[in-house]
Amino acid sequence: MGTMRADGRSADELRDIVFELGCNRYAEGSVLVTWGNTKVLCTASIEEKVPSFLRGSGSGWITAEYAMLPRATHSRMQRDISKGKLNGRCSEIQRLIGRSLRAAVDLTKLGERSVLIDCDVLQADGGTRTAAISAGFIALFEAMRWLRDRGTLSAMPLKTQVAAVSVGKIGGEIMLDLCYEEDSAAEVDANVVMTGCGNFIEFQGTGEGGVFSRTELDEIVSIAWKGVEEIQRKQFAALAVTPEEAKFFLC
Amino acid sequence: MGTMRADGRSADELRDIVFELGCNRYAEGSVLVTWGNTKVLCTASIEEKVPSFLRGSGSGWITAEYAMLPRATHSRMQRDISKGKLNGRCSEIQRLIGRSLRAAVDLTKLGERSVLIDCDVLQADGGTRTAAISAGFIALFEAMRWLRDRGTLSAMPLKTQVAAVSVGKIGGEIMLDLCYEEDSAAEVDANVVMTGCGNFIEFQGTGEGGVFSRTELDEIVSIAWKGVEEIQRKQFAALAVTPEEAKFFLC
Amino acid sequence: MGTMRADGRSADELRDIVFELGCNRYAEGSVLVTWGNTKVLCTASIEEKVPSFLRGSGSGWITAEYAMLPRATHSRMQRDISKGKLNGRCSEIQRLIGRSLRAAVDLTKLGERSVLIDCDVLQADGGTRTAAISAGFIALFEAMRWLRDRGTLSAMPLKTQVAAVSVGKIGGEIMLDLCYEEDSAAEVDANVVMTGCGNFIEFQGTGEGGVFSRTELDEIVSIAWKGVEEIQRKQFAALAVTPEEAKFFLC
Amino acid sequence: MGTMRADGRSADELRDIVFELGCNRYAEGSVLVTWGNTKVLCTASIEEKVPSFLRGSGSGWITAEYAMLPRATHSRMQRDISKGKLNGRCSEIQRLIGRSLRAAVDLTKLGERSVLIDCDVLQADGGTRTAAISAGFIALFEAMRWLRDRGTLSAMPLKTQVAAVSVGKIGGEIMLDLCYEEDSAAEVDANVVMTGCGNFIEFQGTGEGGVFSRTELDEIVSIAWKGVEEIQRKQFAALAVTPEEAKFFLC
Amino acid sequence: MGTMRADGRSADELRDIVFELGCNRYAEGSVLVTWGNTKVLCTASIEEKVPSFLRGSGSGWITAEYAMLPRATHSRMQRDISKGKLNGRCSEIQRLIGRSLRAAVDLTKLGERSVLIDCDVLQADGGTRTAAISAGFIALFEAMRWLRDRGTLSAMPLKTQVAAVSVGKIGGEIMLDLCYEEDSAAEVDANVVMTGCGNFIEFQGTGEGGVFSRTELDEIVSIAWKGVEEIQRKQFAALAVTPEEAKFFLC
Amino acid sequence: MGTMRADGRSADELRDIVFELGCNRYAEGSVLVTWGNTKVLCTASIEEKVPSFLRGSGSGWITAEYAMLPRATHSRMQRDISKGKLNGRCSEIQRLIGRSLRAAVDLTKLGERSVLIDCDVLQADGGTRTAAISAGFIALFEAMRWLRDRGTLSAMPLKTQVAAVSVGKIGGEIMLDLCYEEDSAAEVDANVVMTGCGNFIEFQGTGEGGVFSRTELDEIVSIAWKGVEEIQRKQFAALAVTPEEAKFFLC
Repeated sequence: MGTMRADGRSADELRDIVFELGCNRYAEGSVLVTWGNTKVLCTASIEEKVPSFLRGSGSGWITAEYAMLPRATHSRMQRDISKGKLNGRCSEIQRLIGRSLRAAVDLTKLGERSVLIDCDVLQADGGTRTAAISAGFIALFEAMRWLRDRGTLSAMPLKTQVAAVSVGKIGGEIMLDLCYEEDSAAEVDANVVMTGCGNFIEFQGTGEGGVFSRTELDEIVSIAWKGVEEIQRKQFAALAVTPEEAKFFLC
Repeated sequence: MGTMRADGRSADELRDIVFELGCNRYAEGSVLVTWGNTKVLCTASIEEKVPSFLRGSGSGWITAEYAMLPRATHSRMQRDISKGKLNGRCSEIQRLIGRSLRAAVDLTKLGERSVLIDCDVLQADGGTRTAAISAGFIALFEAMRWLRDRGTLSAMPLKTQVAAVSVGKIGGEIMLDLCYEEDSAAEVDANVVMTGCGNFIEFQGTGEGGVFSRTELDEIVSIAWKGVEEIQRKQFAALAVTPEEAKFFLC
Repeated sequence: MGTMRADGRSADELRDIVFELGCNRYAEGSVLVTWGNTKVLCTASIEEKVPSFLRGSGSGWITAEYAMLPRATHSRMQRDISKGKLNGRCSEIQRLIGRSLRAAVDLTKLGERSVLIDCDVLQADGGTRTAAISAGFIALFEAMRWLRDRGTLSAMPLKTQVAAVSVGKIGGEIMLDLCYEEDSAAEVDANVVMTGCGNFIEFQGTGEGGVFSRTELDEIVSIAWKGVEEIQRKQFAALAVTPEEAKFFLC
Repeated sequence: MGTMRADGRSADELRDIVFELGCNRYAEGSVLVTWGNTKVLCTASIEEKVPSFLRGSGSGWITAEYAMLPRATHSRMQRDISKGKLNGRCSEIQRLIGRSLRAAVDLTKLGERSVLIDCDVLQADGGTRTAAISAGFIALFEAMRWLRDRGTLSAMPLKTQVAAVSVGKIGGEIMLDLCYEEDSAAEVDANVVMTGCGNFIEFQGTGEGGVFSRTELDEIVSIAWKGVEEIQRKQFAALAVTPEEAKFFLC
Repeated sequence: MGTMRADGRSADELRDIVFELGCNRYAEGSVLVTWGNTKVLCTASIEEKVPSFLRGSGSGWITAEYAMLPRATHSRMQRDISKGKLNGRCSEIQRLIGRSLRAAVDLTKLGERSVLIDCDVLQADGGTRTAAISAGFIALFEAMRWLRDRGTLSAMPLKTQVAAVSVGKIGGEIMLDLCYEEDSAAEVDANVVMTGCGNFIEFQGTGEGGVFSRTELDEIVSIAWKGVEEIQRKQFAALAVTPEEAKFFLC
Repeated sequence: MGTMRADGRSADELRDIVFELGCNRYAEGSVLVTWGNTKVLCTASIEEKVPSFLRGSGSGWITAEYAMLPRATHSRMQRDISKGKLNGRCSEIQRLIGRSLRAAVDLTKLGERSVLIDCDVLQADGGTRTAAISAGFIALFEAMRWLRDRGTLSAMPLKTQVAAVSVGKIGGEIMLDLCYEEDSAAEVDANVVMTGCGNFIEFQGTGEGGVFSRTELDEIVSIAWKGVEEIQRKQFAALAVTPEEAKFFLC
């Protein structure tokens, strides 16, 4: 891992990550994450209803929506509504975010209510989906705290901490947390979502013009966990979760 | 005008307005305006093409799109794409923004290229359309400067400065720059778009359960111009336009 | 105001206006207005339900839809359904018509029912939105009479008379009731909606490549009121409202 | 055929039919047909282009669109654009109108241009599709005359006259030209489109809760031809086609 | 009828038809029909609900949907969902299938439940709509048997047998059951839907660049009935309906 | 791996898989795969054009579409076109199929043409996406052979063989090739796409209410490769690829 990257990072080094909580005055949870040059605004909205398939079940629901502002990218993209259909990539990403965050929650303890996590990308420089999951967890956590602090729930219905990071293979080398330029050059691109004790919620490794061997899979996993652990520390720091409290989230 | 308002302002007093330029690293012009609790992100994107009705005409085009993030408001709104159609209110507002900003530009001098102004409301507390016009002018100005500084154009093809403000009639009294709570209570709601020398580009006065007399129309006009003048000073300060340069925009 | 216009009218003269009531045998109110070469068919449909936000409120609702037949214009326009989305201009106009006509009605006295005003432009030669508002008032009035005459309501829940007219600035001169050719040449275009006693329900003045000064705003207002008064006389003549009855609508 | 119908007609009697030509000042051909209480506005629009599958073929095209105003019917129907999709019934009818009118035209002689027939139902009392075809032929004829009179074509590229009528079976009896009330009660409903010499362009017989025998099919055919002949006389009268000219259209 | 056709058939000869029942393990009725080179998969799905206009009426409903796989045809067609709207031809055909199959059923005896017939064309070589109706009857029959065999209904609520066939006029000659190549060359194309005793449910004859005389209409009818009788024998053979049982379906 | 599964398979045993080639007479490649009770029809369509972003690049394109017939599942699902939007799950799956099959092809050698792989699920019993990828490879292979055999290309532009399989964790045990019932009960669901020499093209492991450890990831990988190897043997057998030829596809 001796190669120096364009921005001076080593292969297993994250970009700077800053979480600004409370950036929206109406939402039950909100955070603006600045992750290198990627910026994602996440809000958590609590609604006292559930999708029809859960009505009467006593169980709650967590879902996510993901979108990009038109000029989040180098050249302007048309809005979905102008094209009349949801972008396939966005549809796929928001399903991933929803699944990942549902894994953090005990839906029965949540009760028949929904939390909608809106992830809107203000500026994109790679890693927007992993930033959205990692920040989405913070917005979700805040919303859970809001439910507990108002007495709606006696405890926060969380089962584990959730964070995500991207890993890529570029020129044969495995690297952590790709920026857009690196992502475009990568032969393999992986997005890894993990719990507080290092289990996988989701592992999506994709050959983009390349493939990866079993040995490389192992290497991706190792470097991903190193990154996720660091992100999880930052999440709890931003949320002011004490080490004492944090123990409850170690799966 | 002796009534004190909920937030302590006098009837003819604007809320605090802060323009943060350069908030988007890709756009040719960008600004985040914080206007009381209203926050709008505006980007200007230059495209080297024009709509088909202008092709070959030598003339350029300015257009705008306006949207709100789902949780920009007290309760979460569904995204347009989920409902499958553009919100009527948004469609109306983006047409207003486009018309207002086109009035600032000499389209022939701009040449056959387009500037798209994207106005995305991150948080809404009343006055989003006038904030979008006033900030949109700044993003547009930056994009024009970008064209001039790179030598694409020899001069900035601007004809006048443009700013907008809302005025309302509440309990019979005319008030400047309504926040959401005031707007909901208003009998009459006016949005006024003006040039640097105090002419009207657009005047939209609407009875919302009330009407307004000719005398009240006069009063609305006076208080609007007072507000617009102040906003125009803030625009030029944010853009670092010198008083010397500013003269060119006095119509 | 000495300039002669293309069709021989003076600057403050309306085109010929004819209202044909009862042109639709099913609707609770209907009128075909021929306004110069502009023809708009308006029907009022009563439905015994209200939008969800009014359910249980005891209050009624007035709403409008506006559309153009494909060949209402010089060259044929594609239908909205072929393009898959509502035209932005139509969406804006139907919101204006709805707001304007709601101002005429005491919604509480109407009770929990809706009146839908459909305005379909058969032929367009400028001023379709003001013709639609002025004729829409007649269809609405008829529907109210229908409710009273059948005993559903003991009185017509109307608060005021509503009529609208367009005014433009062409070659620096303010002119009443523009036809399409004049409208295309206008620097400024205003649509003014007024009550029976001369208050404003809506004032929309728009610079179309030009601007207007405060003095011109005054002139637009004066000429608009002159036009509206004349239209209101024609409305009551068509509806066979006696001067005695008419007094109830003087605000 | 001794039964008297609700409106006093005999079984083989058409309703009153009036064609008002030139009802639209912009279209190359236009007619408002009043057919009993059914009213359909038809315009013919010439466009100097053809669908992509005909480009370069030298051949022209005829197509039709059919729609109903929302209050054309007893109770108001939602507009297609509000529902986001073209009504299946309308789609089927406009395909029928297009096919029927194409049969009247020598597309090669028309040259690479299109004629769009817009049929908008202002009021519906049964038989709207056959009224649209019969009136559509008039609008088409006018557009052809317009092309010839301006010298674009040396002759009108028509092959035959086209008219249509509905026939139904009610209470076992075959009846011509059903109004809505009769149509609702019919066991069988047929729409018959014929040429000037009595050949079929289209025969659509449909059991609506009933069936029809071979003998009944024969009876439907006979009564249909009687009706079509009469409509064709009215078409030529309205178009001021002399008996001399008419001969050219006898197939 | 001495002309030999491309595939060696005589003018009044059907293509080979094979019905494979039970091809779908979930549906209440299913059949894959291979009709020459045309292949259509039909399933019948029972749902314990009816459209809103029938709720509380005690009556059931039969409806159909028809679609083609993208490569059912010589060159690949875009999916409807990619174009964002239902193909007009498909919409027309599925309405025809629904009407035809409703004619077979006593909707009151069916009770307040729906049967949805899905007809998906795997390979198209002409005659897909008549194959869909003929196979759709089989799927519907199976679903009715399923309802009776499980005791939901005491008897199968069928009124008659239904089958359909296409007939065309090619080079002046009337021919039964056109394949795609013949269909493309036909001057006239007819689709005939008939009951078990030879009455018409639907007769749709269409001039495709040609017309048909009354004598030709007679000839089409004769040859159609010959084809339908044979198809009806095959339907009952595939369904293992005994001649004894079959009598109940002779209208 | 001693647990017996519902259908008697051992934990690492595939269901019966049959590939029927040439099931569509128009497509350049086609196969119907029966995989247990799952049935997917795949066609490969060659089009002599590429998406706009590749025009002039000399490079070809492979893309896929995936859909389910409405009654492919236990209870009938609404068609996408009825709901007006592409199902999110389908959108995600077709992107996966496209990426996986592109990995098999040297796009530059393919030249500026596209291959569209349509995967339509006739019956679904789990594993439809992996069946679609494995059968899609066969259709793609056939289309490549078609290009080579007609002389359009001198060699088949394939880089590697591609096959896919699902693996799940049920009750803590890792099992190969889940049927629907098993899939519904699984804590973890993985879809693995591999090349002929055992490298990964895609690895998607998802916690569905559960998580998976690093050890379990290893176990999933081992069992997946065992399954993929067997599927690859079946692919080549169905394609009649000799062991000699097969060597060219071992990456």
